[in-house]
Amino acid sequence: MKTITDIDGVYASGIHCGIKKSKKDLAYIFIPNAYSSAGVFTQNQFAAPSIHYNKKIIKRNLLKAVIINSGNANAGTGEQGFTNVKKAAKLTAQKLNLNPNEVAVSSTGIIGEQLPIEKIESGIEKLLANPKKKEGTIAAEAILTTDLFKKEAFYEKDGIIVAGFTKGSGMLAPNMATMLCYLVTNAKVPTKKLQKMLTETVNISFNMTTVDNDTSTNDMTLAFSTGEKEADLKLVQDLMTKACIDLTKQMAVDGEGAQHLIEINVQNAASYKDARKIALNIANSPLVKTAIAGEDPNWGRIIAAAAKDPKIKINLKKLDLSIQDTLIYSKEKIVLKNREDLGKKLKSKEIKINLDLNLGKSQATAWGCDLTHDYININTKYS
Amino acid sequence: MKTITDIDGVYASGIHCGIKKSKKDLAYIFIPNAYSSAGVFTQNQFAAPSIHYNKKIIKRNLLKAVIINSGNANAGTGEQGFTNVKKAAKLTAQKLNLNPNEVAVSSTGIIGEQLPIEKIESGIEKLLANPKKKEGTIAAEAILTTDLFKKEAFYEKDGIIVAGFTKGSGMLAPNMATMLCYLVTNAKVPTKKLQKMLTETVNISFNMTTVDNDTSTNDMTLAFSTGEKEADLKLVQDLMTKACIDLTKQMAVDGEGAQHLIEINVQNAASYKDARKIALNIANSPLVKTAIAGEDPNWGRIIAAAAKDPKIKINLKKLDLSIQDTLIYSKEKIVLKNREDLGKKLKSKEIKINLDLNLGKSQATAWGCDLTHDYININTKYS
Repeated sequence: MKTITDIDGVYASGIHCGIKKSKKDLAYIFIPNAYSSAGVFTQNQFAAPSIHYNKKIIKRNLLKAVIINSGNANAGTGEQGFTNVKKAAKLTAQKLNLNPNEVAVSSTGIIGEQLPIEKIESGIEKLLANPKKKEGTIAAEAILTTDLFKKEAFYEKDGIIVAGFTKGSGMLAPNMATMLCYLVTNAKVPTKKLQKMLTETVNISFNMTTVDNDTSTNDMTLAFSTGEKEADLKLVQDLMTKACIDLTKQMAVDGEGAQHLIEINVQNAASYKDARKIALNIANSPLVKTAIAGEDPNWGRIIAAAAKDPKIKINLKKLDLSIQDTLIYSKEKIVLKNREDLGKKLKSKEIKINLDLNLGKSQATAWGCDLTHDYININTKYS
Repeated sequence: MKTITDIDGVYASGIHCGIKKSKKDLAYIFIPNAYSSAGVFTQNQFAAPSIHYNKKIIKRNLLKAVIINSGNANAGTGEQGFTNVKKAAKLTAQKLNLNPNEVAVSSTGIIGEQLPIEKIESGIEKLLANPKKKEGTIAAEAILTTDLFKKEAFYEKDGIIVAGFTKGSGMLAPNMATMLCYLVTNAKVPTKKLQKMLTETVNISFNMTTVDNDTSTNDMTLAFSTGEKEADLKLVQDLMTKACIDLTKQMAVDGEGAQHLIEINVQNAASYKDARKIALNIANSPLVKTAIAGEDPNWGRIIAAAAKDPKIKINLKKLDLSIQDTLIYSKEKIVLKNREDLGKKLKSKEIKINLDLNLGKSQATAWGCDLTHDYININTKYS
């Protein structure tokens, strides 16, 4: 499979520097001739120092590199945490002949412990001894935490490419499980356009696996353009959307302990806001998630989750619920004849829930995963 | 322990009528000379027919009885569901010499299946053959679903009593796990006052184990006054608050799969709204809940949950976090020297989290429980 370093002028790799016991834990991306850069960051007020740092530098600078560590989120670490971010950026910049203001810093892992900065510094020395590595896949691997597999996307049409990789698998409540994503395009997209495109795409992809504004202390998505090719911006937006939805689904499939990917389509809602809220309320419902984990045909929980917010416009007399393309409940009537038949359909790896409100013209899609014993195993003994 | 039927003029009992395999599943409360009644109901738009029925009758009638079944929520059951509610109310009224408009109906259990109304009707015949039973504790038992124990409260001072019982144990997301609660006082409280008191009390007790407005399809709390004794209403309110917080904690302890009760106090917030939201955001965080289940000193998750909403006023430079009365994190500094010490403190059955924002004068308390394997066991195979 192709990776971000298959784009001309994009370099990346990763190594083990000693934060984790043995797995890779330090990565970089380097785009020496970047044409534009953009970022979307967590809104959590307990945001990590790296978030504050990146938000500040991206305002006035074109980013050309990012240094990423996994195994420690460097969050809740106060002034020392901020000093460590600056140390990492400074050393990375030195090795890459950049200004520190051109280097973003990302961290993911445990909250509330100081970074082992000496290990990171000697790791950077080693990792960037030769910074022109074409090893995007190794970088994609080095940013993982509880993820079971690396997540890459590569979309190309008419020579225009959008490629990226991501990490994140605390999908029950991604509000506090770090999601990091890095995207690169070879299309020439001016900074403001790139920022607008990225914000819009994140909104219908990554943000549709979580509740609005509920993001972790460290979440960030960065996008870079190499500026190599003139392109129709609609095409770029389309490729970016495909890449981000692909990465979103990969994260949902790899949700901590997940056995089923859940896709929720809400159709014909009175407003986009309603469609979005309903889709997310279903995706976030622990009772829906456990029912699907158990392949239990307890469909009532889906409508209960959809209808829980009294401010959302719903008319039960018009509402249709389908699961796996089979109509279950329609306009206050239970259409499902045999609950066992539905149970069998739930054995599929991908579960599609379709809720047609028959009220308006707005639609939204959300993705999630089931809630299983392995989620508990992973999160009861994290630190 | 004393129960609601220890109040003069209050009758209750329960039996097995065949909805569940062998456990009791049908109960009643009968207050022939009720002086006033009040109710608080779910705001879920997928509300069960019983909710619509009760909301309607309570507007113009003094309630004197309630018939309650467990094992089937009679939700998502359309017109037939509504007909079944009326059948149950009518037969109960007939047996008690009441008007059907004086009889409330409650159901809890699985969503989306029609009530076995014949079983309930023959059950009512049997249960109300002698309706003057003094068996409040049996009624408290007959309304349970996945609860491991019955939950009663009895508070008395100067001859004034507030007593009640409740059910509910889907505490991870009580928004869709039915909570039913019945309260009786012997104090003479006029209807409007009783309603106001009940609403206020529910708001700081039952509603503090869940997210605002997120209630199940069947949730209800009913309160009755026998009118026996003139009383200082402040005393009644105080006893009602004590009873409801007691019942709230009993529900949290019995949260599906719970091994720890979690109490979250938020102090010195800028507003009550902020204090309340922060307390609930912590109580609802799956990552906090799993950390406590694992007795894992991963305290950073608590602040991340507290700070996730960008609209809440928080200043990390002022914030202090204590767990089990030990200061962990203060004004951006990690005070905790040894994570293992905190791990040991988390072995306690009751976990107290205290977050002092040092911003204003508002406080709120929320209750919850940890998230364990047993929650998954219970909810993956419910139906």
